[in-house]
Amino acid sequence: MFYTDYKLQFPVRVEKPNPLFAKALQQAIGGIEGEIRVAMQYMFQAWGARGNNKYREMLLNTGAEELGHIEMLSTAVALNLENAPLNMQEEMSADPVGGAILNGTNLRHILSTGLAALPVDASGVPFDMSHIYASGNIAADMYANVTAEATGRVLAVRLFNMTTDPGMKEMLAFLIARDTMHQNQWAAVIEELGGPEEQLPIPNSFPQSQENQEYSYVYLGFTKDGAEPPRGRWTDGKSIDGNGSFSLRPMEPQGREPDLGPARENSGAQSAQIKG
Amino acid sequence: MFYTDYKLQFPVRVEKPNPLFAKALQQAIGGIEGEIRVAMQYMFQAWGARGNNKYREMLLNTGAEELGHIEMLSTAVALNLENAPLNMQEEMSADPVGGAILNGTNLRHILSTGLAALPVDASGVPFDMSHIYASGNIAADMYANVTAEATGRVLAVRLFNMTTDPGMKEMLAFLIARDTMHQNQWAAVIEELGGPEEQLPIPNSFPQSQENQEYSYVYLGFTKDGAEPPRGRWTDGKSIDGNGSFSLRPMEPQGREPDLGPARENSGAQSAQIKG
Amino acid sequence: MFYTDYKLQFPVRVEKPNPLFAKALQQAIGGIEGEIRVAMQYMFQAWGARGNNKYREMLLNTGAEELGHIEMLSTAVALNLENAPLNMQEEMSADPVGGAILNGTNLRHILSTGLAALPVDASGVPFDMSHIYASGNIAADMYANVTAEATGRVLAVRLFNMTTDPGMKEMLAFLIARDTMHQNQWAAVIEELGGPEEQLPIPNSFPQSQENQEYSYVYLGFTKDGAEPPRGRWTDGKSIDGNGSFSLRPMEPQGREPDLGPARENSGAQSAQIKG
Amino acid sequence: MFYTDYKLQFPVRVEKPNPLFAKALQQAIGGIEGEIRVAMQYMFQAWGARGNNKYREMLLNTGAEELGHIEMLSTAVALNLENAPLNMQEEMSADPVGGAILNGTNLRHILSTGLAALPVDASGVPFDMSHIYASGNIAADMYANVTAEATGRVLAVRLFNMTTDPGMKEMLAFLIARDTMHQNQWAAVIEELGGPEEQLPIPNSFPQSQENQEYSYVYLGFTKDGAEPPRGRWTDGKSIDGNGSFSLRPMEPQGREPDLGPARENSGAQSAQIKG
Amino acid sequence: MFYTDYKLQFPVRVEKPNPLFAKALQQAIGGIEGEIRVAMQYMFQAWGARGNNKYREMLLNTGAEELGHIEMLSTAVALNLENAPLNMQEEMSADPVGGAILNGTNLRHILSTGLAALPVDASGVPFDMSHIYASGNIAADMYANVTAEATGRVLAVRLFNMTTDPGMKEMLAFLIARDTMHQNQWAAVIEELGGPEEQLPIPNSFPQSQENQEYSYVYLGFTKDGAEPPRGRWTDGKSIDGNGSFSLRPMEPQGREPDLGPARENSGAQSAQIKG
Amino acid sequence: MFYTDYKLQFPVRVEKPNPLFAKALQQAIGGIEGEIRVAMQYMFQAWGARGNNKYREMLLNTGAEELGHIEMLSTAVALNLENAPLNMQEEMSADPVGGAILNGTNLRHILSTGLAALPVDASGVPFDMSHIYASGNIAADMYANVTAEATGRVLAVRLFNMTTDPGMKEMLAFLIARDTMHQNQWAAVIEELGGPEEQLPIPNSFPQSQENQEYSYVYLGFTKDGAEPPRGRWTDGKSIDGNGSFSLRPMEPQGREPDLGPARENSGAQSAQIKG
Repeated sequence: MFYTDYKLQFPVRVEKPNPLFAKALQQAIGGIEGEIRVAMQYMFQAWGARGNNKYREMLLNTGAEELGHIEMLSTAVALNLENAPLNMQEEMSADPVGGAILNGTNLRHILSTGLAALPVDASGVPFDMSHIYASGNIAADMYANVTAEATGRVLAVRLFNMTTDPGMKEMLAFLIARDTMHQNQWAAVIEELGGPEEQLPIPNSFPQSQENQEYSYVYLGFTKDGAEPPRGRWTDGKSIDGNGSFSLRPMEPQGREPDLGPARENSGAQSAQIKG
Repeated sequence: MFYTDYKLQFPVRVEKPNPLFAKALQQAIGGIEGEIRVAMQYMFQAWGARGNNKYREMLLNTGAEELGHIEMLSTAVALNLENAPLNMQEEMSADPVGGAILNGTNLRHILSTGLAALPVDASGVPFDMSHIYASGNIAADMYANVTAEATGRVLAVRLFNMTTDPGMKEMLAFLIARDTMHQNQWAAVIEELGGPEEQLPIPNSFPQSQENQEYSYVYLGFTKDGAEPPRGRWTDGKSIDGNGSFSLRPMEPQGREPDLGPARENSGAQSAQIKG
Repeated sequence: MFYTDYKLQFPVRVEKPNPLFAKALQQAIGGIEGEIRVAMQYMFQAWGARGNNKYREMLLNTGAEELGHIEMLSTAVALNLENAPLNMQEEMSADPVGGAILNGTNLRHILSTGLAALPVDASGVPFDMSHIYASGNIAADMYANVTAEATGRVLAVRLFNMTTDPGMKEMLAFLIARDTMHQNQWAAVIEELGGPEEQLPIPNSFPQSQENQEYSYVYLGFTKDGAEPPRGRWTDGKSIDGNGSFSLRPMEPQGREPDLGPARENSGAQSAQIKG
Repeated sequence: MFYTDYKLQFPVRVEKPNPLFAKALQQAIGGIEGEIRVAMQYMFQAWGARGNNKYREMLLNTGAEELGHIEMLSTAVALNLENAPLNMQEEMSADPVGGAILNGTNLRHILSTGLAALPVDASGVPFDMSHIYASGNIAADMYANVTAEATGRVLAVRLFNMTTDPGMKEMLAFLIARDTMHQNQWAAVIEELGGPEEQLPIPNSFPQSQENQEYSYVYLGFTKDGAEPPRGRWTDGKSIDGNGSFSLRPMEPQGREPDLGPARENSGAQSAQIKG
Repeated sequence: MFYTDYKLQFPVRVEKPNPLFAKALQQAIGGIEGEIRVAMQYMFQAWGARGNNKYREMLLNTGAEELGHIEMLSTAVALNLENAPLNMQEEMSADPVGGAILNGTNLRHILSTGLAALPVDASGVPFDMSHIYASGNIAADMYANVTAEATGRVLAVRLFNMTTDPGMKEMLAFLIARDTMHQNQWAAVIEELGGPEEQLPIPNSFPQSQENQEYSYVYLGFTKDGAEPPRGRWTDGKSIDGNGSFSLRPMEPQGREPDLGPARENSGAQSAQIKG
Repeated sequence: MFYTDYKLQFPVRVEKPNPLFAKALQQAIGGIEGEIRVAMQYMFQAWGARGNNKYREMLLNTGAEELGHIEMLSTAVALNLENAPLNMQEEMSADPVGGAILNGTNLRHILSTGLAALPVDASGVPFDMSHIYASGNIAADMYANVTAEATGRVLAVRLFNMTTDPGMKEMLAFLIARDTMHQNQWAAVIEELGGPEEQLPIPNSFPQSQENQEYSYVYLGFTKDGAEPPRGRWTDGKSIDGNGSFSLRPMEPQGREPDLGPARENSGAQSAQIKG
């Protein structure tokens, strides 16, 4: 169950409203790096959590925080739309200068919401819940969460660098700090569970004896002329999971060219395909 | 530039074709955990790579491998559709037993492709390229890649556990091994770059002095009654990035309830909203 | 800001787990008639609310409730997946009977979540946030909310009728009751604002003198032979908004066939189009 | 069956073509508030209509009208694209002023259609037919239709307010009038069927004795500190459906924190989850 | 403008209702090969038609026909859902046989429409209007239309082969005939315009002297080892457009490996990328 | 299997970077007329190819080429984003001129990729793999491929006309030439298979005696008043497939108005519908 007190987690103020920045902020609401994604992701992970229930609670707790971040950002969008132009001046289309503010505005901020936020990204594309990663595997989910917070902080930093409004910078400095924490938080779960060397390869409950171990730790090359692909930590030394040693070799095809044979009668193919 | 020799990276054979398993395999082609995703993700990361060009090459090289995995899985789908029923027996709808094979078949395998693979997931939902994560930040991308390979291997293991066909098990044992390598590979890049303590918080090029550091390493509680949320590695000890110490406290709202005021004239609101 | 106590609003129990019913329940989570939709819709309406702030609070309050409904349903899905088959018996594809349970299972419940809920509908299609209706017009939003709760209650009734599990019937009887309340709740806001006669036509802030009033209250016929279309309340008597009287007449085209003229040079058309 | 006479329902003329307004008009074609939506919605409702066939006819009749509205708007888009720039002047990127018209243009109006309409919204997002609400329940559908026409008229009013072109204002004044009628029309069906008091709760064919009536007419509070949520028509007096009386109380969780237990062997979880 | 007479273009009858076939028929409504697609495609092509207006009329005329095909198929879906099971028998989940009919049913036919058609495909994926091809180039559009009718007829043939119901076969035999006509119709437009030799390369209004003619008629090989790719009509003889002669050669890269250089400061990259 | 040499098929250079043109170029990457589409389409057609295997090879070979075109265009996007503004000047929102460059920029090129390409179209809509046409019928696929290359070349010509950058013109002149070849290539396959007269109607393996031949070659009129629709090659003379003669007549409905009867009990309808 969830509760609210109607208040903002952190103050949101805008000194100079800017519809173009409202459009940019949408990426942090409805973008794949945004807050709807993390709020829903942590909740769906919690609702399907199996094993120690403390992770369920931790996820729900942070999921509730992220809901409040959507709220902050939606408020920021609305405030940036204050004074946005609602109509076109007649001279606009004659004059290449006119219309510049509307050009940078997400027109749906006027047409669809009456100057408020939408659950869309900076291009106006609605958020699609297929981006909620909740695999039922806690380690895979933790990596997904580090990723979400990493791309989320990259985004917040880019927004911070883009704006010159002190209120917006203050809000983003707060959100960036929370992303710092959350990156560390999910990485801390991985550490608590034993770190990459114990968690990898994910899922670690599958006996590696059943995989084709000839191919488990070799970086394969797919260069046209068989030239050696670039060396690095991934070609030499112990593997990160500690279960093998990296090596390097060009790949040769182990299979033949497939031939599916002629098409079946009544399968809607052309006659030439059926004859084979 | 890309080249082909028409051959399969690893042999694909099916002893007992099974349309239901063909439907399941689609998740590994067009699912969010699937091979179209990794192939395209590694390529888009490569095409936007900035900094040391060896990562571009490493990404392209593995991207080329993943294309071959789509090819293997598409072949496996087609082979599992051998002998699939193309028409309904008249008695089917009268008899609750009849139709079982068609019930488990993705009908589009018959109707849309004539017994071949589709770029869709196990529910028939087409792959959407918004799932290609290529952030321009190498560390964020590497975590995204570990995630992709982690969910990918979880999926491959589930498919391996689901099937009883020796040919399919053999193919999946190969793909699982490659996912083992690729998880390690992307984790190795993170290590080569200095590991989480140097890479976190992502992006590490943003001066942390500009974030609101009061909130950078504290696990905030959002429980209704202020009860302490669960403790763990994320509430105690040094942060994973080494730049702070974890702590814990309940969150109190720092902002007030927002009031956006009355709606503007001509903004399409109801009169009652305009009066305020 | 949002808070949680980790508990369910109402008990969720399943006596006989059933993967097919788990698939059906997904419609109430990620379907267009489902709970993600109402939770997010009420919140986005709240975050963009202008005018009397009490509606913001009322919306947030009910939005928080709906989040708890997603939680209940996600728990119900997981419980219905207990004991779901994870692997295929070898005889399945030979025997038209075999595989029946897997045939009715959303395979992604096995492959993508390890036996837990997804933010998708009963066909496995992910929820798309374009379904969040928050227009900035309170009356339009209230009608959208009545609609959401009407289709939501129709769905819950169909699920109630479909299942024979006492635990599931109990949970659905609760959710149906809440949908009863919420239909009444949003209709009550319309009444509080003066009812349809005062709220229609939406938006009521637009002076009707500016619309083409010849066409404001006439039911137009588009029958091939000019036959009178069906009469009803919408063809006779005072209009619902009280501002006019319904009438009926066949439509005659007021405009001509458009002619956009030849294509422009350099616009990528065929030469034949450019010549006109 | 459907027929055409190639003519426009109402004249469409544009005095000063404006590509930015062409982009805005797209919302009325392919937006969720637009004409493709209502045309297809009324038709699918008609094609699935059960009960008195006069509603089928009424729906088809108005569906045919709405098709003609897509036609009018598509013509309006094409006319607004007359003289749109097809190429960039060399100085544009050097000069922050240059390019202003192209900045406000949906580039696909040039690149994908050669200066004609697209079935997309004002952000360029294609219309998705999941927005066709046709529930098989006539009352739910009528509320959906009032909603569609309410958001549709709000949109048309916003477009009317945005443009200064007399031709466009004339066309929109006509479409706004039709939206007035259609809002009234669908509300009239509800009235003909007995009004909200007889139609609510939807579906009214479900015996309310089977719902959990303790929760049917109570506005529940989800405030953090148990503070009373806002009162209004929804907390006091007879319910809108006339079957109960509104009341108000804070919600206490009736269920416990769920515990799904350990993950199953072979379900792709981490070992730590399987141990529990 | 569009009109209706409420009648079906061709009789639709179902002798033995079959929910699985209802699901299959959905592909012909909301699939990419289906009737919504062609109806809307021909209309959008008409509404943007430039050049001789007779093509506008021809397109509208056939677009109106296709609307009637959606109507026929929607009726067929509803009739195939007669007697569909609305509830699960208790024994179903215990017994692998039980539930077979529901297993093959699109559950949304019960849950979302009350036994009527949806604008979705056979997997339940909603139709997405991005599939409306209307390029502003009449020859490109005619090829798109031949394609649509070709995949449409392939689909209709597969449905014809799948069903054993005489009523359904009769309806499909009619629709297949119309697809025959429409394939020929669009091909006839190409012929009227001068045939492929005059229409290709599309757009034929672009002077070929401006393309890089060294590469205009050569089939390039991308084999790993430089082996000659397969010869055919496309490697030898006059080109189809009559403007060149086919030839064959392996491709050598003409460009170098790109190097985008280091990332910019403030662009959200990792420090290692900025240093270069 | 696929290989790479990291090099570009053709040089890509940009003299004057232009973020607006970067946005336009996205249509050729992730648009429905773009290169992801053809690359994936040819590969999926190859992987499902039945009949003579030389077509598989030809498709794979050209699919490999198209991957290299995505690479070229992604490089072009990144180069056009050189020097793009990363932050807003404070005066921008005050001054309608300011912000013009950002107005024309896809903000996700800054926020989501750090100045690199995305798999989206010119509106920022992600590519959706449902656009991969691979029907299992070689003739249908070849027409789909001609269409893809026709719309692709139309797009490339429009981009060529839009830009003034010599480097971009050079790259596009190359891509236009390749589209010339590929249009001819797929048309050549149709010719090799016997041309339209042998391939049409698609699928040619279905005996035309089973279709309703009364309707196979008649152009039907759907005009409101029965006026003759436009004549052309499609109304007179031998059909393109050579199997019939075109004719023309107005359509009369052959079916009656459907009546689905009352709604079933327990189907979630309103009581009024159940009574009939």
